[in-house]
Amino acid sequence: MQVKVLQNILGANEAIAAENRRLFDRYGTFVVNLMSSPGAGKTSLILRTVKKLRDRVKMAVIEGDVASRVDADKISQEGISVIQINTGGGCHLDANMIRRALEELPLDDIKLLFIENVGNLICPAEFALGEHRKVMILSLPEGDDKPHKYPLMFSEADAIVVNKVDLAPHLDFNLSTFREAVTDLNPEAEILEVSCRSGEGIENWVSWLLTEMKSAYRI
Amino acid sequence: MQVKVLQNILGANEAIAAENRRLFDRYGTFVVNLMSSPGAGKTSLILRTVKKLRDRVKMAVIEGDVASRVDADKISQEGISVIQINTGGGCHLDANMIRRALEELPLDDIKLLFIENVGNLICPAEFALGEHRKVMILSLPEGDDKPHKYPLMFSEADAIVVNKVDLAPHLDFNLSTFREAVTDLNPEAEILEVSCRSGEGIENWVSWLLTEMKSAYRI
Repeated sequence: MQVKVLQNILGANEAIAAENRRLFDRYGTFVVNLMSSPGAGKTSLILRTVKKLRDRVKMAVIEGDVASRVDADKISQEGISVIQINTGGGCHLDANMIRRALEELPLDDIKLLFIENVGNLICPAEFALGEHRKVMILSLPEGDDKPHKYPLMFSEADAIVVNKVDLAPHLDFNLSTFREAVTDLNPEAEILEVSCRSGEGIENWVSWLLTEMKSAYRI
Repeated sequence: MQVKVLQNILGANEAIAAENRRLFDRYGTFVVNLMSSPGAGKTSLILRTVKKLRDRVKMAVIEGDVASRVDADKISQEGISVIQINTGGGCHLDANMIRRALEELPLDDIKLLFIENVGNLICPAEFALGEHRKVMILSLPEGDDKPHKYPLMFSEADAIVVNKVDLAPHLDFNLSTFREAVTDLNPEAEILEVSCRSGEGIENWVSWLLTEMKSAYRI
């Protein structure tokens, strides 16, 4: 019984996600669902991307948080349109929350939309939002064992951004162990090492992002 | 309607948590529900505590994970009894999972039981397990803005262990900003700064823990 209810929730979510996706494709808006643990660097990666691409690509952000608008304020200060969703306790965004947020966004003017999901490595992986790509961030201080513990998130991601590589000398994170564990779960995933603090690797991330945008819309 | 269902779930959980608590009190087992983001240092804090107290206090651990037994194996290597709960996708432990795990644990022989919850700053805060104290870990790399974003967890915690203070020179974490934000939400909470890597502050943590055990059982 419980499983049936859950299937209904996920089924209903998939249907709304497919509607969102049709809307994105009608306007040619490329959408990235950005997921990670709390504090891994979702907002920092968005801010770095804004700095690199603001002159070339019109961007917007949907911010998902349990509470507060700390991140939305940071992005808004850069002159980027932001819609804040507060889930009020909910541990993930769902497609219906995104549908409602889209009523406030002029999609015809937006080429790249980041959806910053709630900081959580578990439930966001189960809820499609209509995005073109799922990107997860794993920060070095979280440890190299995370693929074993949160396999769904690592399996679902199109790209895994390994952030805070500037801290590597102070940690025991083994990058080759980590890469092997990811590849076992998800051989197709792109793994990109960056430091949002120093800027290292951001060029590669932006280049991957632009390639994916081009492949989606042949621009 | 949805709210009513949720209330039923939480109400049923509270009832089972109260039964667990009666069982703990019958045997004089002090129970700590340990919660944090993925990789903040729950297992490391348990291992540090084991090293300090193994000769004085009989301990056991219930390990909660979405998948794997990585952490359980680490603790078992120290000769400590461990029960692994795999939630298979579930983002928190609940009181019924603990009740079932207790069937495998000889409580009359255990004075201190750690329950290591699933790595998640959101849902675990809503589900009582029957514990005497809720302890959360926030690691420095996660950032000093977390109390604003995850207010329930910070409000519910009896103690907040700030881990990875050895990384402070490499981060922008402002400890006084963080302490103020915590105190606004939860003036009673004990805030303990530690580094499970260097051992700094572990003495204070163990001392707090022993004081709480004494106050619960007047030993």
